[in-house]
Amino acid sequence: MIEGRKRVSIEAVSPEVDCGRFPVKRIAGEKVEVEAHVFADGHDQVVACLMYRKADEVSWNRVFMSPLENDRWTGSFQADEMGAWFYTVCGWIDHFLTWQEDLKKRIYAGQEIEQELLIGVEMIKEARSRVDEDADEIFDGWCRSIEGQEDGFRAARIALSPELGILMSRYVEEDRISFYEKELVLWVDREKAGFSTWYEVFPRSWGEGEGHGTFADLEKQIPEISRMGFDVLYLSPIHPIGMINRKGRNNSITAGPDSPGSPWAIGSVEGGHKSIHPQLGREEDFLSLIRCSKEWGMEIALDLAFQCSPDHPYVKEHPEWFRWRPDGVIQYAENPPKKYEDIVPFDFECQDWQALWDELGSILFHWIDMGVRIFRVDNPHTKPFAFWEWLFNSARKDHPDVIFLSEAFTRPRVMSRLAKVGFSQSYTYFTWRNTKSELQTYLEELIRGELREYFRPNFWPNTPDILPQFLQFGGRAAFVSRLVLAATLSSNYGIYGPAFDLCVSEAMEDREEYADSEKYEIKRWDLNSPASLRDFIERVNRIRNENPALWKTFNLKFYEVDNDQIIFFEKRTEDLSNVVMVAVNLDPFHRQSGTVRVPIGDLGISSEDSYMLHELISDERCLWQGEFNRVDLDPGILPAGIFIVNRTLRKESDFDYFM
Amino acid sequence: MIEGRKRVSIEAVSPEVDCGRFPVKRIAGEKVEVEAHVFADGHDQVVACLMYRKADEVSWNRVFMSPLENDRWTGSFQADEMGAWFYTVCGWIDHFLTWQEDLKKRIYAGQEIEQELLIGVEMIKEARSRVDEDADEIFDGWCRSIEGQEDGFRAARIALSPELGILMSRYVEEDRISFYEKELVLWVDREKAGFSTWYEVFPRSWGEGEGHGTFADLEKQIPEISRMGFDVLYLSPIHPIGMINRKGRNNSITAGPDSPGSPWAIGSVEGGHKSIHPQLGREEDFLSLIRCSKEWGMEIALDLAFQCSPDHPYVKEHPEWFRWRPDGVIQYAENPPKKYEDIVPFDFECQDWQALWDELGSILFHWIDMGVRIFRVDNPHTKPFAFWEWLFNSARKDHPDVIFLSEAFTRPRVMSRLAKVGFSQSYTYFTWRNTKSELQTYLEELIRGELREYFRPNFWPNTPDILPQFLQFGGRAAFVSRLVLAATLSSNYGIYGPAFDLCVSEAMEDREEYADSEKYEIKRWDLNSPASLRDFIERVNRIRNENPALWKTFNLKFYEVDNDQIIFFEKRTEDLSNVVMVAVNLDPFHRQSGTVRVPIGDLGISSEDSYMLHELISDERCLWQGEFNRVDLDPGILPAGIFIVNRTLRKESDFDYFM
Repeated sequence: MIEGRKRVSIEAVSPEVDCGRFPVKRIAGEKVEVEAHVFADGHDQVVACLMYRKADEVSWNRVFMSPLENDRWTGSFQADEMGAWFYTVCGWIDHFLTWQEDLKKRIYAGQEIEQELLIGVEMIKEARSRVDEDADEIFDGWCRSIEGQEDGFRAARIALSPELGILMSRYVEEDRISFYEKELVLWVDREKAGFSTWYEVFPRSWGEGEGHGTFADLEKQIPEISRMGFDVLYLSPIHPIGMINRKGRNNSITAGPDSPGSPWAIGSVEGGHKSIHPQLGREEDFLSLIRCSKEWGMEIALDLAFQCSPDHPYVKEHPEWFRWRPDGVIQYAENPPKKYEDIVPFDFECQDWQALWDELGSILFHWIDMGVRIFRVDNPHTKPFAFWEWLFNSARKDHPDVIFLSEAFTRPRVMSRLAKVGFSQSYTYFTWRNTKSELQTYLEELIRGELREYFRPNFWPNTPDILPQFLQFGGRAAFVSRLVLAATLSSNYGIYGPAFDLCVSEAMEDREEYADSEKYEIKRWDLNSPASLRDFIERVNRIRNENPALWKTFNLKFYEVDNDQIIFFEKRTEDLSNVVMVAVNLDPFHRQSGTVRVPIGDLGISSEDSYMLHELISDERCLWQGEFNRVDLDPGILPAGIFIVNRTLRKESDFDYFM
Repeated sequence: MIEGRKRVSIEAVSPEVDCGRFPVKRIAGEKVEVEAHVFADGHDQVVACLMYRKADEVSWNRVFMSPLENDRWTGSFQADEMGAWFYTVCGWIDHFLTWQEDLKKRIYAGQEIEQELLIGVEMIKEARSRVDEDADEIFDGWCRSIEGQEDGFRAARIALSPELGILMSRYVEEDRISFYEKELVLWVDREKAGFSTWYEVFPRSWGEGEGHGTFADLEKQIPEISRMGFDVLYLSPIHPIGMINRKGRNNSITAGPDSPGSPWAIGSVEGGHKSIHPQLGREEDFLSLIRCSKEWGMEIALDLAFQCSPDHPYVKEHPEWFRWRPDGVIQYAENPPKKYEDIVPFDFECQDWQALWDELGSILFHWIDMGVRIFRVDNPHTKPFAFWEWLFNSARKDHPDVIFLSEAFTRPRVMSRLAKVGFSQSYTYFTWRNTKSELQTYLEELIRGELREYFRPNFWPNTPDILPQFLQFGGRAAFVSRLVLAATLSSNYGIYGPAFDLCVSEAMEDREEYADSEKYEIKRWDLNSPASLRDFIERVNRIRNENPALWKTFNLKFYEVDNDQIIFFEKRTEDLSNVVMVAVNLDPFHRQSGTVRVPIGDLGISSEDSYMLHELISDERCLWQGEFNRVDLDPGILPAGIFIVNRTLRKESDFDYFM
């Protein structure tokens, strides 16, 4: 039977993803702010509490919530550790607080209060009867001091003490507390899930001579990649590559004798997903690469591409995991009429799906055991959501620090579902959002909607699969502006390495794909080319690393500019100690200028005060005043500016800079 | 263990109230439109079905849903009977449909299809192995006719038949179907819950001489009230009235010897909530009133006021249901510093709450047994939500036709929660919404937001408790315009009878309460006064009853007018056979005119065509053309117009009206 005396209703708890079906995500150390409607019938005083615990703790922590408008309450807690947490909301009628509030009104209205005081004392005594013996004396003390007053108003003053109210509130009858019907799950990731800077490479291209590069070759570049400010070095698949139907240059279906094949065509007689391509090195070389990266403050990210080449050992060992055509030929990957002859997909609907899941899980655990904690997952949208949810939950039981990046460029619902089932970060449509309205609309969707609770964007201006038109035709300025946008709009971003540094812009005709793609051949990048953007990238990454306002994505705010070619936005730390403003000229061909409207009131700046903007790429400074200020960006010089705002400018001394 | 091969995800099913915690409400005969995100990984073809059943049926009905944009699907069913229903959504991958679609693409691309045809036939044979024997022959037939073709394209044409697709879709493997995790509840009310016209009276005021009116007196007025177009006659409480602390005229705390007391101070030595005030008559008189009302197409609504006078029999029989002060005096109702000495509330937090609930339930059942099916519930927001939910569920088990109107003028969350727990209709803030922006904002909230799924507004321009300022000062035009607004904005509306008909506007000083309120004295209304609005009200109610567009609330749409004093809106039936437009001058003092923008395209009217508006109160007609047209409303003549639109105007013949 229900407890009919629980009078408090709790509704609309937020954050909450799909009615609590999926966890809300936060970063370790973040404040988790929870809101709810909490109310009761009648006019009694309601108390609301936020309850939370780590999943492995038994007892709940309770913090009082504060009322907002319209029966909405807010409360927060610090999610200070990685892993799973639970939170929920409870509430109850505080009869003593109600009595206190009513007593005040009676006194103001000049009403008799003698009987009321007796009722109050009765309530204290009733509470005393419920508490553990230690607290008896405190309650008795309050009763004595109220009853000991001859003057009613003196007695009332004591009875109205907030301390007494808090004491009484602590001893509420537990069976009268209403609990929200769900315990919501919070997943807390480590900091890198929220702030990371990725550099993608094909290890085989980093050799010194003509031949196949090795882990050892790549290891020599670690100091330089680290100097550029990257903290995740993501390698294309490092496994043996299939021989059957191996692709040649430019994705041709006939491979030359020296064609190295696509690294995503995984598996050959030399091994499968747990093996290392023999020409890259041996396990100890890989472990050495991980160690060296760590010393330079970087982590290695591997590619999880759950698919096989036709000569992958699985095909022979587990033919039941694949689809076979009536003519006895294995079914390769297709999206009719497109064919991917060098790749065969797993059949996730096969009878033996559980064994398949277990085997794929063992691949993940193999690399986790080798020390890898970041995985970029290839085409996750072509494998069942339930599989990913199971895989991530399995991995995170013992390894809450594992990070998964979803490489799904597909329909919005599919992308968000993948984030819900547990991807830590996701590729986005940023790659194709070029105009101000496209960028602003998309970012608002990412940061204001429900997505912000579980979908962490990772912005990529290019990938080995995508050379967007804007980079094909926009020249160096396009690369600069897209890098600044990616690096400052999103706290997670990455580039497909040297092809970006060197502003490679040659595409297949009428395609957004690289000509002579590194996917099908070994490249030799001229890393020391004077045209390289490396120093510029180093500068932007340093600005990111030094400015905590850029460590988050959801603190983004756009400013109005009267020129559609200029986008202007701001990020700030909560305490305003770091305010970063970014201006980008989206037109890579022409100088653009406009007037930006700065919400100075919001920044604690009065309209009379001037404030200094320090542009961090060029190290130039300028003084602004009031709401409306001028920006001017020349793509021939620098199409973007990243400013920190000094709000506590003392005019006399700072003027030295300009005189 | 989960079935890992269920690949379809189902999210965001709508309508859904509080994650399915509360039922969605509809009216018998309405179409229930359900939407959901239904999608899977990969590129396979997905099928979505809406499932529904009456609560007392065992098996589900399934209807295919149609895709909208972005993986959203829609489907509907007819809720043709009162009572509880369930609905949910399921989906699966249609492999055969996928195969058909891919086959088409292969043919267009000129690819080999021989192997594909073999795969298709294999799929048909596989399905055949799962079906009941009766269907074997059908499957065999399809296989034979595909296999019998020598020409591949002829075979393909047969294999691509939609009929074959539908057949295959019907025999999906049941264990691969994904079901939405919740079965949602739909509560279907009878029509009157959605369209009703209330007239509120104090039966004791309808006597013929000086004395206390009786049911028999009221019965004589039934034909006239029915003629005015009302279908619910709501009576103030009909029970014995307490003597202790009885209120006198104008709510004075000392009652004169002849003071009849407030009907809401229920109970005396003469009986309680199941008794009838002796001066109103006996049970058979009440039964006769019900019978007579029914004959005239009206239903009697009673007031459920769960509170007592201090001399209610319950106080002696069940002192444990009340609060007692330390001095042994019963606790009367208070909202400090306000006191309601003639009323004592039940203590819903008493130990014996279950017995209290049962007894209150027995009151409801008593009147249901007498034939009452509509209850207006007094101050439901001062009793626990859980109590109402229990009470309504108990009553509706055997009486799905019972209607409850919530008289809660309180905070928004409390009002909506009461609707969620089961009130069929709710009083609203309409009573205090006067300006165009107030009205439009509030109505948009009621009809566009989540409220529309469970909160049915009932608009009251006045009640015995509320004489709004607008009616105090606006004169007859204010009564006319507020009546038209209530009657046309909301499909449920009501008035506090004769005080409205007679435009009573005298209030207590600086209050929104009637002077010499009928709550504390017996009134004699001059029903035949020439100032009475009765004929006007009759006209408006007739228009309501004759125009199906006005039988709903959620089909409301506001038009733009360039004058803030004129509000203009439209309601239509889905098939456009009835389009009603309403114009109201919100300024009761001055003539106002403006230009209204009619969305003619939306109404199937071209900009060249003229269309006729027939104003139904004055029976005048006018011709409009194009989007922009003029309205002019003089409060001295008629401050409102209710138009029906004739879209199929044949110009020649209709011109006769004007020549």
